[in-house]
Amino acid sequence: MNHKIFIRDVRESDFAKWKPLWDGYNAFYGREGASALPDEITNLTWSRFFDGYEPMNALVAEHAGKLAGLVHYLFHRSSTQLRSNCYLQDLFTVESARRQGVGRALIEEVYRRAAQAGCGKVYWQTHETNTHAMKLYDKLAKKSGFIIYSNEL
Amino acid sequence: MNHKIFIRDVRESDFAKWKPLWDGYNAFYGREGASALPDEITNLTWSRFFDGYEPMNALVAEHAGKLAGLVHYLFHRSSTQLRSNCYLQDLFTVESARRQGVGRALIEEVYRRAAQAGCGKVYWQTHETNTHAMKLYDKLAKKSGFIIYSNEL
Amino acid sequence: MNHKIFIRDVRESDFAKWKPLWDGYNAFYGREGASALPDEITNLTWSRFFDGYEPMNALVAEHAGKLAGLVHYLFHRSSTQLRSNCYLQDLFTVESARRQGVGRALIEEVYRRAAQAGCGKVYWQTHETNTHAMKLYDKLAKKSGFIIYSNEL
Amino acid sequence: MNHKIFIRDVRESDFAKWKPLWDGYNAFYGREGASALPDEITNLTWSRFFDGYEPMNALVAEHAGKLAGLVHYLFHRSSTQLRSNCYLQDLFTVESARRQGVGRALIEEVYRRAAQAGCGKVYWQTHETNTHAMKLYDKLAKKSGFIIYSNEL
Repeated sequence: MNHKIFIRDVRESDFAKWKPLWDGYNAFYGREGASALPDEITNLTWSRFFDGYEPMNALVAEHAGKLAGLVHYLFHRSSTQLRSNCYLQDLFTVESARRQGVGRALIEEVYRRAAQAGCGKVYWQTHETNTHAMKLYDKLAKKSGFIIYSNEL
Repeated sequence: MNHKIFIRDVRESDFAKWKPLWDGYNAFYGREGASALPDEITNLTWSRFFDGYEPMNALVAEHAGKLAGLVHYLFHRSSTQLRSNCYLQDLFTVESARRQGVGRALIEEVYRRAAQAGCGKVYWQTHETNTHAMKLYDKLAKKSGFIIYSNEL
Repeated sequence: MNHKIFIRDVRESDFAKWKPLWDGYNAFYGREGASALPDEITNLTWSRFFDGYEPMNALVAEHAGKLAGLVHYLFHRSSTQLRSNCYLQDLFTVESARRQGVGRALIEEVYRRAAQAGCGKVYWQTHETNTHAMKLYDKLAKKSGFIIYSNEL
Repeated sequence: MNHKIFIRDVRESDFAKWKPLWDGYNAFYGREGASALPDEITNLTWSRFFDGYEPMNALVAEHAGKLAGLVHYLFHRSSTQLRSNCYLQDLFTVESARRQGVGRALIEEVYRRAAQAGCGKVYWQTHETNTHAMKLYDKLAKKSGFIIYSNEL
């Protein structure tokens, strides 16, 4: 049986359903158990999704009557563009809904939102070893050839 | 003869000296001639450096009485942090002042400014083929293992 | 004959119709002729309406097949609130469409948008001599008792 | 005996000294006891002072070895200016240090900071009945003639 995927803005009433997805996403990056993201950060990030001043946004995917995925994206300045860049920071599909097109639908909706918001491009980061995710990404975007250097302060 | 490197905030009166560095930086990325960055973008970016509302900042390096380098950095939100991230977007040293520590001094000053601004880290992008720059970057930061996917809208 | 008022987001294709309203609004505040607002400001403000990073927004009223009014509002921080404030900066109805409810419809739509954006209130300024406008404002909001001091730098 | 007034950026280590001033300021506006500002707001506002991405800033006045006053100001967009406006939101001098020039010194330092940040003006609100404060304000700024309408959502 096929289920339609419906992408929409997250709502404040979604918190209890969104939180397990957010936890699952964070666990994938090792932020679980003693290393879990502090609730203070989760709560602040959540409140930012609903603050018109904050350029942070969240979409969720409904599939078979449940929240099946999330995507968080934000706008930021760029020195080489008039308008802002769109950084797709977080993307997650629940285990049970994988290989159904949820990730693709979430990314494509970010493309639409970013275009409406005047952005010239959408970009994201992935780990160089994440070949599984890259199978999807290679269909939807270009590997830019740019890599990230980072310094903890 | 050794010259001391002095890093400072860019000033509105620096425009005529900063512009050739900015042009040199853009040329390195192929934005020259018919593909040059439009003046409209340069002028807007420049004005943003001096607008207290904008989280974009520029430092310049003085060396032997001249502007020898520039760095532009900006702050943006992150869903996994209370405070903002620091993205070092542009870095450039003029040909004649290379191998004198200008790049290192600029990056280290961004570290200081970002720490003052409450950031937990500073990050930047470099092309995977830019092994020359990586010699410096490997001393000052960590190759994160993350790569950039990008989609033009 | 009555015409329905339709309030919607401004679109990039509206520029030629929006501009005369903006000019009319500015003229009301003495910004016309030699004192007119520079095009550079108008163009930058216009571009901000379509930049997802900018917390500036514009709505227009359609009435009898024409643009009959505009409202511009922005979100900004407040030290005494978790989320942002909504400042309704500009409101204008064309002469020919006055006393038809255009101003009221624009303000009420800003209320809806601000509530969606998590704001606790919407505020604006009016001159203490503008008793005509206050007839409407007194129905839709409260005179707060606060007055503005300002210092040109 | 005269004491010199020293105005400086607030520091994270100032919290315990800044908090009683903030409480005193809020009490003046009736935000005390059962109506006190929630700690959640105070903590978030405090964190914003130290976040380079946030256009909120705080200065304190040192006088006779103590914190004698505070001022909070923020930058926000304006549709009629290229650069941002400076809104001086909060100003407070402790009872024991009044009539010593603390308020004036705080306002004048905001003028300097706002000018550096490219602002064309600094503005604030005061209640129309606050004739005591207006004695100072009339020396430092102009009563604009504009009044505030506000609607709770």
